[in-house]
Amino acid sequence: MKIDVYFTAAEVEPAVLAEVTVVVIDVLRATTTVVEALANGARGIYPTASTEEAVKLAHSLGRDDTLLCGERKGEKVEGFDLGNSPREFTREAVAGKRLVMSTTNGTRAFVVGQHAARLLAGAFTNLSAVARSVAGDAAVVLVCAGRDDQFSLDDALCAGHLITSVVDAAGEQPELNDAARAARMLALGRTPTRQFLAETWGGQALIDIGLGADLDICADLDRHDLVAEMRDQAIILAAG
Amino acid sequence: MKIDVYFTAAEVEPAVLAEVTVVVIDVLRATTTVVEALANGARGIYPTASTEEAVKLAHSLGRDDTLLCGERKGEKVEGFDLGNSPREFTREAVAGKRLVMSTTNGTRAFVVGQHAARLLAGAFTNLSAVARSVAGDAAVVLVCAGRDDQFSLDDALCAGHLITSVVDAAGEQPELNDAARAARMLALGRTPTRQFLAETWGGQALIDIGLGADLDICADLDRHDLVAEMRDQAIILAAG
Repeated sequence: MKIDVYFTAAEVEPAVLAEVTVVVIDVLRATTTVVEALANGARGIYPTASTEEAVKLAHSLGRDDTLLCGERKGEKVEGFDLGNSPREFTREAVAGKRLVMSTTNGTRAFVVGQHAARLLAGAFTNLSAVARSVAGDAAVVLVCAGRDDQFSLDDALCAGHLITSVVDAAGEQPELNDAARAARMLALGRTPTRQFLAETWGGQALIDIGLGADLDICADLDRHDLVAEMRDQAIILAAG
Repeated sequence: MKIDVYFTAAEVEPAVLAEVTVVVIDVLRATTTVVEALANGARGIYPTASTEEAVKLAHSLGRDDTLLCGERKGEKVEGFDLGNSPREFTREAVAGKRLVMSTTNGTRAFVVGQHAARLLAGAFTNLSAVARSVAGDAAVVLVCAGRDDQFSLDDALCAGHLITSVVDAAGEQPELNDAARAARMLALGRTPTRQFLAETWGGQALIDIGLGADLDICADLDRHDLVAEMRDQAIILAAG
């Protein structure tokens, strides 16, 4: 088994993602929000690279049961139904809905990985479920969304814990690239906590705009036992 | 004091390097080689982004006391005087010479940092001297050369140890970006050894082409007490 990590989506040559299992990680907050939305009954999340594309897609899907979601600079896009705060994606808000979603960093990583054999959304909130789901795959690539194409410690910590869980589930030592080895070293003895996330660049930015309460959900390890997987254009609930 | 790390030169907006102290780190091997060359009496190292530019510059400097140095895929460029192995840069070979140098990853990072207030070459071999030299500066940016624009564990470990040394020398806790915090976590309890370097992606590549003996020099912490600093076009020996 081989596990590679990329700390930013910008580092990835899209060709290396073809034919492998890709897990996109954007702890703060896109993949945490995707997991929350599916746990609360959303039918599917359609990631788009731009807000313009999101608007266009929402109209073609039909606005009746489609919500426009996303942020720029952390805050809800004007005119959209929801932002990117996992707390907004309640059962009341999202059950039975299709969500078209555009975020600054996270949804771009899904677009980069569109030719993967399997494309999953990973967060602390569904870590063990993802680990079990990919443990049988020969080649797994973890793509951290990062922040403005830069290294982001929250995503790196999540990648490291995911590797540890995959190794436990697979029962074999995988071959790791340098970034995967570094992520694993970082995770050793460091558990995800609200405090850890609050000290990261992304966490501080959320606190600065009054969204610090999101961090409690983002750090809630294995809050949901679900696998979120891309099928055609949408991320849906997959068999665990 | 503020210390930021970038794990690849590609992540850096050149504008963030203006007016700050920049340390370029390419443990395997460009900055290790630069330090070795200066320790052995080279007058200056002229980094260039391409081999063509290197040839042109060497001719304009005058070929009598100028050596053409550099590698592609780890091996000496055809027709060049020296490659990029620190073992080649002996006193016999380089004393009194100007060296024009082009390497795959390292010299590009120097070009990116050309508008810095100060631009230094850092490696394990001159780590403490660099740390003392930058400890008084308000803003320091460590640019890891990385490998093919990807994260490289040897450079990250060096960045982490450099931060630890700077903190010791400065006697204050600096503000760190996420990558700087990660580098420091990685360095905690992990000393640079030949074995550590041999297990990195870059180290394995060197062993594969028969240059594994370079790793002994690259891991030799504080082998030289010297600061290598860019002045005009050349990296020269600076007052420590």
